[in-house]
Amino acid sequence: MKPVKVGLLGLGTVGTGVVRIVEGHQEDLQNQTGSPIVIDKILVQDASKSRAVNIDPGKLTEDPWDIIHDPDISVIVEVMGGIELTKGYILEALARGKHVITANKDLMALHGPEILAAAQEHGCDVLYEASVAGGIPIIRTLVEGFSSDRITKIMGIVNGTTNYILTKMTQEGTVYSEALAEAQQLGYAEADPTSDVEGLDAARKMTILSTLGFRSNVALEDVDVKGISSVSREDILYAGRLGYVVKLLGIAESQDDFISVSVQPTMVKHSHPLASVNGVFNAVYVFGEAVGETMFYGAGAGEMPTATSIVADLVAVVKNLKLGVNGKQALLTYKLKKLKTDEQISSKYFMLLHVDDRAGVLAKITQAFAECEVSLESVLQQPNASITEAEIIIITHDASKAAVTKVLDAFKQMDVVKNIRSVYRVEG
Amino acid sequence: MKPVKVGLLGLGTVGTGVVRIVEGHQEDLQNQTGSPIVIDKILVQDASKSRAVNIDPGKLTEDPWDIIHDPDISVIVEVMGGIELTKGYILEALARGKHVITANKDLMALHGPEILAAAQEHGCDVLYEASVAGGIPIIRTLVEGFSSDRITKIMGIVNGTTNYILTKMTQEGTVYSEALAEAQQLGYAEADPTSDVEGLDAARKMTILSTLGFRSNVALEDVDVKGISSVSREDILYAGRLGYVVKLLGIAESQDDFISVSVQPTMVKHSHPLASVNGVFNAVYVFGEAVGETMFYGAGAGEMPTATSIVADLVAVVKNLKLGVNGKQALLTYKLKKLKTDEQISSKYFMLLHVDDRAGVLAKITQAFAECEVSLESVLQQPNASITEAEIIIITHDASKAAVTKVLDAFKQMDVVKNIRSVYRVEG
Repeated sequence: MKPVKVGLLGLGTVGTGVVRIVEGHQEDLQNQTGSPIVIDKILVQDASKSRAVNIDPGKLTEDPWDIIHDPDISVIVEVMGGIELTKGYILEALARGKHVITANKDLMALHGPEILAAAQEHGCDVLYEASVAGGIPIIRTLVEGFSSDRITKIMGIVNGTTNYILTKMTQEGTVYSEALAEAQQLGYAEADPTSDVEGLDAARKMTILSTLGFRSNVALEDVDVKGISSVSREDILYAGRLGYVVKLLGIAESQDDFISVSVQPTMVKHSHPLASVNGVFNAVYVFGEAVGETMFYGAGAGEMPTATSIVADLVAVVKNLKLGVNGKQALLTYKLKKLKTDEQISSKYFMLLHVDDRAGVLAKITQAFAECEVSLESVLQQPNASITEAEIIIITHDASKAAVTKVLDAFKQMDVVKNIRSVYRVEG
Repeated sequence: MKPVKVGLLGLGTVGTGVVRIVEGHQEDLQNQTGSPIVIDKILVQDASKSRAVNIDPGKLTEDPWDIIHDPDISVIVEVMGGIELTKGYILEALARGKHVITANKDLMALHGPEILAAAQEHGCDVLYEASVAGGIPIIRTLVEGFSSDRITKIMGIVNGTTNYILTKMTQEGTVYSEALAEAQQLGYAEADPTSDVEGLDAARKMTILSTLGFRSNVALEDVDVKGISSVSREDILYAGRLGYVVKLLGIAESQDDFISVSVQPTMVKHSHPLASVNGVFNAVYVFGEAVGETMFYGAGAGEMPTATSIVADLVAVVKNLKLGVNGKQALLTYKLKKLKTDEQISSKYFMLLHVDDRAGVLAKITQAFAECEVSLESVLQQPNASITEAEIIIITHDASKAAVTKVLDAFKQMDVVKNIRSVYRVEG
């Protein structure tokens, strides 16, 4: 049997995992696809560097074109990261009829439609299961498992770094800066953690998931993003007392084909399946009109989980090669994108206010809610020994984002409101 | 475009859901498959009966052959249940080149290999996502999502009826008989609940999941089955005190290609993802060598969740029709089945014993464990006001099933052991 030759772009953590699985599981892969699968050439920055896996040095190359222009290589696995340069490599590979598997969420979130169109033009597969939630096969689930359903909500804990930090803050009362430092020490957070903690990484993943779930081309700039750097120990404490945990959630919603996508720290009810997803684990909660509540849980990153998804995509590409049907299963984003306005985006909210501790203040506050037509689920006023003001904790009923913004604007104009300490979306 | 004509065998709850989705989501289905999908004929027991959905009475037939012999029908959806008769219909449909989608776990657990072989012979698809865990796309996940990995453990809460009963007993302290009666009133349990409460339904599903996960033909008789009818309020109470909940788990394990499959009430640690799966919900926990821990959660039964899975299979069949690749994606169970012996099956165990309340008894008990080479994680002896004997609660370290059986046999020979109240496998 003629082996399928694969070119690997990148030999970092994930690339090493891909080599391990393809070599270690060769017999299983052959049994499933009917072909030996060989990693034939590997792009590295420095071919003389020592490696975590045993690799024939003859396979290493520092020249990407050596791989992309090799007519014997039929599949490219891209795990080098980067955006513009990498996109160039992938488009050239597709133009030469090579199938592409990528773990690159940044690339797919920014240039997914262009890359998928090029794939279709050249009759090639582009698969990217590993780009979201590492080892969880969530892309297959959305595209195939729920092909018959109308998905109305996707909520994801899709960034392990921030989930580790928030779990630490919740379970041990650590403050944000300490939890972040620890995540950095453990290698869960980068030296520059901005992309993770400010929600950008999660936003890229939500762009991909909402595009697939709603079958409409969602763009990164459609995602409303807020990170976790302002989450305080106090917020987590109050959340706990009210029966909630704070999680950085990606939330994508679709109603009558109007969609909204956001990433923000959210108070999630204890009984919700997402509330018990802790540490670096990821989970994606999907609500479908017919199927109802579902959730998919697993490792969101790491060498072997991510490599599992990449090699599962490789099996799919090789099966398609055997059947001669590559490039035929491309997702059609056949729905016109219609974004919800702030009037259409609706949820419950938590607010913590510091106010003047005198008669009539609560009346003024509740009056502001009433004028903006936001009704309240619960209101608690209490003294706070550490401040001179009184503290008001509010949970609203479902309210539009526009109305809540109006309420907050009104508070900013009020002398009696000293400080809008925090505002959170509430789920579950 | 020529529509794809589907014959539906059965119009009960799930069949009705299939009609609802195919009609209600027609535009989406066409966008995904490029073809209109029409349910052309429906087998019913009584064509004159009134129906929950609007159906052209001309589509109803009481004669199965009217559907199976219709050359215009290319896909059969079987939701009538039953085993031998139904198998005959399906084999005849396959012989006539029709693709088959079934939700019938009993049929697939008993005759899966025969049916899949017939499908392969005739170049037809047989898909059965709905046969296990209703709306959770767990079959796709095992076959495609984890194609690259070696799965070593599958643990499933795959029977909603028993999970409802155990949840009720745990959360409200209800006794088994009352919880069962309530499940029957709510329609979650049948008038004759044997198949659910004795674990047979779960065993059928585990037969299917372990065959797919381990790529080896597991038979129903390979599954060691114990139901929940002897689970007492006391067991649940003790489990809770020790940090566990009692769940009916299907457990399939593979080590060096030796496998074991069982269904039994199990004590699951609170922190384990399966511990918080409550009510009629299902979940399947999958551990892969590379991917690590994953879990898939959702509705395990019901009209619309089950219909979601059936129609997702229908989309897959119609896509294959377009590509001309039906019957080509059959799973190869290429591994020889090797069952673990009781010496090879290993886990932690919980035991509750009633013993004579006098000096030296605990020494005798622990001596018996030592002689069988079972080491203990924790031992608690305490008086029990409601009995004259003392109570001993033991949790073992990992021990072979054979050794634990030897210990229990030794206890049965001891005068001082009055009653082996309960023995549970422990997970998490």
